[in-house]
Formats: sequence, structure tokens, C-alpha cells
Amino acid sequence: MNIENLKHMLSKGVARAAAFVGAVALLMAVSGTAHAEVPGESQFVFNTFSFLVHGFLVMWMACGFAMLEAGLVRTKNTSMQCLKNITLFSIASIMFYLVGYNLMYDGVDGGFMGSISMWAQDDSAAAAGKFVGDDAVGYSAASDFFFQLVFVATAASIVSGTVAERVKLWSFLLFTVILTGFIYPIQGSWQWGGGWLAELGFADFAGSTLVHSCGGWAALTGALIIGARKGKYAADGTVTPLPGSNLPLATLGTFILWLGWFGFNGGSQLAMGSAADAIAIANIYINTNIAAAGGVVACVILTQLIYKKVDLTMALNGALAGLVSITAGPDTPSLGLAAIIGAIGGVIVVVFVPLLDKLKIDDVVGAIPVHLIAGIWGTMAVPISSDGATFYAQAVGVVSIGAFVLVTSAIVWFVLKMVMGGIRVSEEDEIAGLDQAECGLEAYPEFRGSQTI
Amino acid sequence: MNIENLKHMLSKGVARAAAFVGAVALLMAVSGTAHAEVPGESQFVFNTFSFLVHGFLVMWMACGFAMLEAGLVRTKNTSMQCLKNITLFSIASIMFYLVGYNLMYDGVDGGFMGSISMWAQDDSAAAAGKFVGDDAVGYSAASDFFFQLVFVATAASIVSGTVAERVKLWSFLLFTVILTGFIYPIQGSWQWGGGWLAELGFADFAGSTLVHSCGGWAALTGALIIGARKGKYAADGTVTPLPGSNLPLATLGTFILWLGWFGFNGGSQLAMGSAADAIAIANIYINTNIAAAGGVVACVILTQLIYKKVDLTMALNGALAGLVSITAGPDTPSLGLAAIIGAIGGVIVVVFVPLLDKLKIDDVVGAIPVHLIAGIWGTMAVPISSDGATFYAQAVGVVSIGAFVLVTSAIVWFVLKMVMGGIRVSEEDEIAGLDQAECGLEAYPEFRGSQTI
Amino acid sequence: MNIENLKHMLSKGVARAAAFVGAVALLMAVSGTAHAEVPGESQFVFNTFSFLVHGFLVMWMACGFAMLEAGLVRTKNTSMQCLKNITLFSIASIMFYLVGYNLMYDGVDGGFMGSISMWAQDDSAAAAGKFVGDDAVGYSAASDFFFQLVFVATAASIVSGTVAERVKLWSFLLFTVILTGFIYPIQGSWQWGGGWLAELGFADFAGSTLVHSCGGWAALTGALIIGARKGKYAADGTVTPLPGSNLPLATLGTFILWLGWFGFNGGSQLAMGSAADAIAIANIYINTNIAAAGGVVACVILTQLIYKKVDLTMALNGALAGLVSITAGPDTPSLGLAAIIGAIGGVIVVVFVPLLDKLKIDDVVGAIPVHLIAGIWGTMAVPISSDGATFYAQAVGVVSIGAFVLVTSAIVWFVLKMVMGGIRVSEEDEIAGLDQAECGLEAYPEFRGSQTI
Repeated sequence: MNIENLKHMLSKGVARAAAFVGAVALLMAVSGTAHAEVPGESQFVFNTFSFLVHGFLVMWMACGFAMLEAGLVRTKNTSMQCLKNITLFSIASIMFYLVGYNLMYDGVDGGFMGSISMWAQDDSAAAAGKFVGDDAVGYSAASDFFFQLVFVATAASIVSGTVAERVKLWSFLLFTVILTGFIYPIQGSWQWGGGWLAELGFADFAGSTLVHSCGGWAALTGALIIGARKGKYAADGTVTPLPGSNLPLATLGTFILWLGWFGFNGGSQLAMGSAADAIAIANIYINTNIAAAGGVVACVILTQLIYKKVDLTMALNGALAGLVSITAGPDTPSLGLAAIIGAIGGVIVVVFVPLLDKLKIDDVVGAIPVHLIAGIWGTMAVPISSDGATFYAQAVGVVSIGAFVLVTSAIVWFVLKMVMGGIRVSEEDEIAGLDQAECGLEAYPEFRGSQTI
Repeated sequence: MNIENLKHMLSKGVARAAAFVGAVALLMAVSGTAHAEVPGESQFVFNTFSFLVHGFLVMWMACGFAMLEAGLVRTKNTSMQCLKNITLFSIASIMFYLVGYNLMYDGVDGGFMGSISMWAQDDSAAAAGKFVGDDAVGYSAASDFFFQLVFVATAASIVSGTVAERVKLWSFLLFTVILTGFIYPIQGSWQWGGGWLAELGFADFAGSTLVHSCGGWAALTGALIIGARKGKYAADGTVTPLPGSNLPLATLGTFILWLGWFGFNGGSQLAMGSAADAIAIANIYINTNIAAAGGVVACVILTQLIYKKVDLTMALNGALAGLVSITAGPDTPSLGLAAIIGAIGGVIVVVFVPLLDKLKIDDVVGAIPVHLIAGIWGTMAVPISSDGATFYAQAVGVVSIGAFVLVTSAIVWFVLKMVMGGIRVSEEDEIAGLDQAECGLEAYPEFRGSQTI
Repeated sequence: MNIENLKHMLSKGVARAAAFVGAVALLMAVSGTAHAEVPGESQFVFNTFSFLVHGFLVMWMACGFAMLEAGLVRTKNTSMQCLKNITLFSIASIMFYLVGYNLMYDGVDGGFMGSISMWAQDDSAAAAGKFVGDDAVGYSAASDFFFQLVFVATAASIVSGTVAERVKLWSFLLFTVILTGFIYPIQGSWQWGGGWLAELGFADFAGSTLVHSCGGWAALTGALIIGARKGKYAADGTVTPLPGSNLPLATLGTFILWLGWFGFNGGSQLAMGSAADAIAIANIYINTNIAAAGGVVACVILTQLIYKKVDLTMALNGALAGLVSITAGPDTPSLGLAAIIGAIGGVIVVVFVPLLDKLKIDDVVGAIPVHLIAGIWGTMAVPISSDGATFYAQAVGVVSIGAFVLVTSAIVWFVLKMVMGGIRVSEEDEIAGLDQAECGLEAYPEFRGSQTI
């Protein structure tokens, strides 16, 4: 553990917890019930276990993205979508170890990035029993690494969904290497690493901007540079729907993401070793849940009113947009406000999905409205309930990270285009499907027959 | 937190835990090892974390029901089934906040319902450090809200499965509003809110009656009022099987429910802050697991003997019936008795699924045998191993809750029938499928072809 | 709890933890901060909760195997594969209670098996408050039973995948009875029960050999005795691919297994009641994760180089082989070494899947390379990073358990062949599919049409 990590914790709730524990300790010392406090080593175990449990929930989100995307692409590209998702998680796991973690957390100190070095576990201070006193160690460094690592893959999964059905496998994988090893960690260091945004007072509790908008900007850049799928947009402006091939699978993916989000937001409290932390996490859980519910209900009602039918994929994306919207500040709103924040996320989906089609930006799974637009909304909504946050600092964070990710990912996509001989598969391969062209395995070899597009 | 919550806790195991902790404290004071006890604030964190972890497992059951039901309906109704399940969970999340929680827990005091008011989080006592002494606070109020909330959706999911493939979307959603906001909380207050059934000595640890039979009665009422699917029962008494379209999905749903049930029953201990609680939860886990196993094995053997083939859907329902059967009293039986209680749940499935068909009650997924009949069986089986419970009190609970839910849900269905212009889709829409009629999206647009019914 | 259990704990990390706690206690006594230590009862709760949380993750692996196998068989055998998996988990739950647990853990004492007796819960010592002192009780006996139980089913699941699509249902189920009640527990007692292998110094932290190779040997024996599927291997040596029918389902299964493996390896620390244990578990999590990632990346790169296309099923099996490879020693390697150990697991998949086909050993899901060969590799790799382990002891463990499982499972398969009138379905039934022949339910009744093999 290093000073930046401590800052990271401090910026995200441990300060309150520490103050609280101090107050309680004083109270107890006075009242003679000192033993009721959580002992230092118990705090260490609680904090570490919170990282692990909430971390495995976030890891599970990788499966959620895989299922959501596999259900929303056509059968001829389904194996490829599964392959991309399990491989991007693997790449993120390795790149964050090799360079990403330290680039994000090591020695940022108010600046623009950390050190270029491999993460090396350092639990020696804890092993020496330093749970108390001035140089207290609060959690296992490995558990923090695990929790931060599973966040990285989320950003890459977002890109995967948007550019599906036409991006070349290896171009996408190389983009993922750069995104998870460099782009994500550098912008992440600005806030969670204790960089310049953190000093400015930017607030992004669990990553509406740092994770979801980051992935969303990279996805948007990809969609613009790669272009739309063949047959999606006619010259006369008509839009041909290319419906997802397996909606129960997409529903499964959404439920997995909803479940995983308790880890995403709850674990971002970064501590569980006191009653104050436990209370904070519990409030985060219920706010997260009701924001998703608000997103669903908004989409169900709106699509009924607008289209006279309720659109399942909008409802699913409504849940996700609700979740993204509450992620920047799940700790401070009341339940009612959290429901409204989530519901506005749902409205964003209903408005922006057709709008992107008008702009001929082909976003296969709707990730740009869900992660980018709802992520911006959620970030700007933080000052409504959080005293510390200002609209100015929020706007600076949104714009600066947006600009950084737009520019860097555009550069990477262009470099890949030159180096790899194009980042898009040939027209023949696109028509035949990526499964046959690049993967050699059909997703449902016995079910084909009525495929027309 | 209020007195009713405390009662709720007291009635479900904390009394034993508290007595135990007291005894241990005494022992330790005598032997001079006082520091070995769990400190007050640690208890608070343990209790809260138990609610959160077990709560997210129960939330996951919503996905289990969605997958089970999506797999057991025909392809033409699959999107609708997914939509209903994610929306009902969202409605439950909002209604329980707006009115349900306080109707169930606030000021019931031996009576028939609580107050009509919104739930408002109150963790201020804990925030003041009151973990010890006479006015001790044991857990975060928000974590308790989360745990109770995820239970509500289970009851609504049960209805969803039975009335599938012919109920109108909006009639079902409005029914869900009333069920989760009023019917479920009122009958729940009788026992878990500290109402008249609790005073009578009724025992229902995790809800064989309060959750599963409650949902089952509402489902039965719905099935009777809405009627059977077209083509299911011929005038001459022959029954046409309408097979589920995706059995691996139904299997996935069953495994999810099995996993979630560790949260459902284990978390209902409502505390984890002492060795006694931890021991109780561990015993609940293994009893829950073996009851499900008993249900499966009973169904596998019985269907082989009766039909000369083993029926997968019966085996899946056998697991669920075993789980429902043990839910009223997972804490007291031995492992052997738990296996037998679960196996009898399996027998119920094999007997009642064809019996309902004889009675022309069309239960699409078999939810009435699994949740209603096995729920009654489980409730009546509690006195076998629990000293405190009596068959009289159990019967009073089963009958009174059955009558209440039957009558109130029948009223709601009839009112919806009048107000909504029918609660059932038109014959054309039923033949075309609800996905096309109400949802506008096919579940598997590329797989159609051999659909005949 | 008995002495063997304690040994089991001692051999797996508690010794280190205990020594550490002792050192910390001393340090604190000297420095006057005694209250910072985890109190005895808190340790009890932490340890028990670790068994429960990690246990439910391992239980979830049963679903992972079901989905993986259901996705990798053809549609005509998919219901059967689901049925086998939920039934084998149920049988394991009952047999391990009736005889397996005590055969594995009760009174082994350096020998070759425990007692033949039913497991009986004994949490009385804990209930008497014995968390401290010489006869300290560290966890709930029921939670340990739960954790060990869910491991048993894993071994049986491995067999299920290899012999799929031609084994008779009841022959397989009876084999499972013997495997989970006798074969697995006896060889398990040699190491985890404190038997002769443990005394020899064999090291197998979470079961590369005891669980995965054990299942792998039983699967190999089954594949050899039952023979290949009709049409798989022609007389002229050509191999006909029989592609899996639902690759997103197989991907789901792989992600479930990856998630469950955090429980499998992390929970095998067998304690969480100290900072040392928490640190160990956190390191196990990140090593487990990066080993899986290494397996995926190795398979993705190798199949691209060899076949010019990336094979999704190889990538999925690469993840699993990486996980199996790290399972024997996830606590000691550095992250870099763990990634390499996992990557070599991936290489094993790419090499051995075609090799088995050359040998005409028909392994439907690739379980033999993943669980048997990678399990051997993982076991032999332990001494690279673990000071205590020797290549000699590792080889003795691999060979002795291999010989025992090969011989006993061969005997069981042969006895079943005689008693059951063959362990393989008729040629007609195999062509028609096991779903129709033995299960009577099609997995996807509306999707058939293009089935050719």
C-alpha cells in the first residue's frame, strides 16, 4: 500500500468512517465500554472481505456483458461476441497487473498519471501486525488490486458491445490492450489515484464518468471510425432494425449486471470495518436497486406511450441506464431521489437510442446512451444531494475525461487501422458473419435456417 | 429501526443469540477472557453484512424466476415473460418503499397491519454509536429494508409463472402493484411484523406460507379467473402438452433459485453477530441444500417408476418444491429429516402437476404445486422438529393467510377485469403470441420455423 | 469437529495464521494495544462465514458445469445433460452426508480411510463458548460440512461431461453414488483427512489432484470403457466434429465456473479470522484470476497461430485449464508465475484435445485435458513456489490417486455393465438422442430442423 491508495480510500468514505470510529472510541472510553469497538485486526478482515465479495460481484459483470451482447447480436456473430468478452477480461487482468495499476495509483500525487511499473503485492506492513496506530494498514493490498482490476474490464466491455458485428477480432483485442493498460488507468489516476481532478473536488463515487463514460467515449470513437453495419442505414435515411437473436440471454445479462452492481457501488465504499461503513454500504445497495427499478419503470411507461407496445430491450437498457446514473453518487441521495435519478436514466435511453440512429451512429447494444449519456447525467446529478460536490468541478471532470478518451482512443483506432490493414472485416466476412470468418465455430449450429440478414 | 423490527428479529433467532451471548459473556467474565466476545460494533457489521450478502442472493432469485419461466413458455411468449419479470421486480422495489415496508413492520403491535406511510431510513441511533447497552441497535435499517424488499418480488414472480402466455401485460403489472404494495405486506405483518399470528405462536421461519403460499394463492386465483390457455384442455378431457421452449434456460433458473435460497433461508436468521447465529445459519444452509436434493431424487425415482422415463421439468420443480418445503423451518430439523421433508415436496410435484390438469387449472410452470402445496406442507411440518410450534397455530396461519390472499387477489383480478377491459389478451393475440401482440419483439427472431402451437 | 478436521485446517494455512495471531497478540500485549486483535468469537464468525460464502460460490459451479456441458452437446442430448447435472449434485449432497464425509475425515489418522458412518453435526463445543484456550473451536462444523460437500459434486460433474451423449442415465447415476460416497472420499482422506499422503508431505491446496484429477481419471476410465460416440471416429482415422449446439450457454458455464473458483480456492484457506488469513485469501483470488486469464490468452494466441482462426471452445477450456492448474497451489506463486502456470494449462488444452482424438478417446467437452492433465501439471508445479513441497511427494500423490481412481472406477463401470445390462444406450437411442429415449422431453422443441448428425 502507498500514500495514493490511502488518499483513494480517504476520498471515498474512509475519512468519514475514521472520524466516526474516533468519535465512537472517545464516547466509549468515557462510558467505559471500550471493548464494543471493532478491533483493528477485525477491521482489516472486514475491509478485505468487502473488497473480495464486492470484487467477485463485479467480476461477474463480465459475464453479464457477455450475455447481454451475445443476446443482442445476430446468431452469425454470437460466438465472436462471447470470445471477445472472455478475452477482454483476460487481457484486462494481465495489463492492469503489468502496467495499469501503478499507472493509476502509484505516485500520482495531484498530477496526471502514476508510475510505469508492474504492480507488486506489498502486504508486509499488515503482516507485521500494523492494524493500529499512526501507520495503520486497513486492508490487504491484494484485495484492493482485485477490486480495482475487475473495474477495468467493465470499461472494455462497453466498447465491445457498440462495435460488435463488424470490428476485426485482433484490432479489438489490441485496442483493449491499450485501453486497459493505459487510457483507463491514466484518466482514472486523475481522480481515484489522487490526481488533479481529485484536488479540484470532482466527485465520482463508483465511476459514472471514470468507468462508464470512459468506456462510452471509447465506444463512440470506435463506432464513428469503424462506421455502421452494412444494411443498417439506407441512403434514403431509413433504418433497418437488426434484431438481437436471443432476448432471454440479454435479459440474463441485465440481471447479472444488476446483481454485480451491488458490488460495483457497494464495494466502492472501500471499507466495511465500522458501523458507519456498513450503514453507508447498505444505503448504497438500496439506492442502487431503486435507481435500476426507476430506469425500468420509466422505459416501460414511455415505450407504451410512444410506441403502444412495451419494448423489452429498452426496459433492459433502462435498468442499466438507471444503474449507471446512480453510480457517481449512490451514497448521498434519498431513496426517492435515487429513483428519480434512475428514471431519468431510463428517459435518456428512450430518447437517445433513436437519436443515434438518426445520426447514423451504429451502436449495436445501445451502450452509448446507457454508459456515456447516462454516465454524464449521473455525474452532473451528484451536487443535487452531495454538499461537497459542485457543478463546476463535475463539468470539468466530464469534459476533461471525455476529451482525453476521445483523442487517445481515436489515435489508437487510427494507428490500428494503418498497422492492421483495417479495423473492419471485409464486406463478405460481415455478411457471412464473424463467427465463420474469424472464429470458425457457429454459436447455434443446429438452429440456423431462417436467417435473412 | 422500531420496536416491531426488534420483535421481528426476536421472533426469529436473535433471542436465542442474545441469551447465548449473555451466557458467554458471563462465562468469560468469570474465566477472565472477556475480550473473546464479539464487540458491539463488530456485531453490527456482521448483522448488516449478512443482510446484504443474503439479500443479494435473494435478489438473484428474480433472475432465476425469469429464466425458469422464459424456458418453460413457448418462444412466442418468451420476451413477454422476460419483460414481466424484470418489471415486477422494479415495481416491487418501488411499492415496498412507498407503502409496503411500513404497512408490514411499522406499528403492527399484535394487530392486522402497520401504518400507511413511506419507509424512511433511520440509522441515526446507530450513527450515534449505540451498539451496546439497553437501547442497542443491531444492524443498519437500510440493510434490513433491502433484505425484506427482495422477498416481496418472490411472491410476485410466482404469479407471473402461473398466468403466463395469456394474461395482459398491464393487468399483470397493476396486479403486481397491489400485491407488492398491499396484499403481501398486510399478511406479512401478521407474523413478521409482530401481528396477531406471531402472538398466536405461528412459526414460519423464512416464508413457506408468508412468501410462497401467498404467491401461490394469488397465482391460483389468477389461473381460475383468467382461465386456461387456448388448446390446452379439449372438451373431451384430453390434455395437450404445450412444452417449454428452452429447457437449459429453465435448468439455469432452477440452479439460480437453489443458490439464492441460501440467502432466502440463511439470511432469515436476521443476525450473524455471534457464534450461535453463525452456527444457526450454517445449519440452515445444509438443511436447505439437502431438502432440494431430496426433492430432486424423489422426482427422478418417481417419474422413472410411473412414466418409465425421467422428466427433467419434474426434477427441476422437485428441487424447488424441496426448497419451499424446508423454508418454514430450516433451522430445527436434522439433515435426515430435512431430506425427507424435501423429498415429500418432490412427491407433491409428481402428484399435483397432473391433478391440476385433471381439474383444468392451467399452471404454466407448475408454480401452484411447488409454492402453494409444498408451502402448506412445509408449514405444517414445522412442529415435527420445532418444540415451540403447534399444528393448531400452523393450521390457523395457513388457513387465515390463504383466505385473505384468495379473497383480496380475487377482488383485484375482478376489478382489473372491469377497469382494463379484460385481463386476458384476445384469442388472436394469444395465437400470435404475446411477444408480437404486446411487446413487438420476438425472443428468437432467427430460430422460428417449426412452431406449431 | 474432530482431530482430523483440525489437522486438515492446520495443513492448509491455519498453522501460519495461528502463529501469526500469536505473534500479533504478543506484540500487542507488549505495546499495550491488546484490544486490536480479533476476538475468539469474531474469529469463529469470520471462519464460518468464509465457509458459507465460498461454499455457495462452489455450489454455483454445479450450475456452471451444467451450462457448459448443455452448451457443448448436441440439442438431442441437452435435456439429459441438464438432468444428469442437477441429479448428480443431489446425489452428492445425500451420499456425502450418509457416508462420504466421515469416510473422508473421521478417524483417518495417517491411514487410508475414515469411518463408515453418517455425518452428525456437532457444534456443541462451540455452543458452550469454547472459542479460546487450548480446546478452541474455530468454526461451525455445519459450515465445514457444507464447504466440503460442494467439492464432491465437482468431481462427479467432470465425469458427466466426458461420457455425455451415450451413457445410460441410470448407469451414470449409480456410478455417481459410488464416486461421491466412496471413491472420492477415500482418496480425499489420504490428504485432507490427514491420511498417509498428508504425512508424506503431499501438497494440494484446493484439489488439482484430489478433485480435478480424481474426476478426470474417473472420466477417462468411463470414456475408454463406454467407447466413442457413433460417427465420431471413422475406420480410416478421420475425425468428424460433432459441434456443441449452444456456445453462449457454454460461455455462461465457463464464466460461472471462473466465478465459483474464487470460492473453490479462496475458501480452501479454511479460515478468515485473522489478517494473515484475509491476506492469504486475497492473494489466492488474484492468482486464481490471472491463471485463468493466462489460460485464455495462451489458447487465443495458439489457435490463431495454428488454425488461423481463434477457437472459442478452446478459449473457454483454456480458462478452465488455467484455473485447474493453479488450484494445487494458489497461495504461494507471484502473480507473474501464476499467469505462466495458467498459460501452460492453456497450452495443454491446445495440445491434448486433438491428441485424444488421435487416440480415439471421445471426450465430449474436453474434460480430460482440462481436469486430468492440467490437474497433474498444477500439482507438479507446486514445488516451484512452495518451499514445503517436493517433486517426489507430488509425484507419489499424483500416481497413487491416479491408480486408485483408475482401478476402482473401472471396477464400478464393469460391474454396472454386467448388472445394468450395459452402460451405453442402444444405437437407435443414440441416434434418436438421449432426450427422446430416456428423458421424454426435447430441450428446444421449437428449434429443431437443421439437425443432421
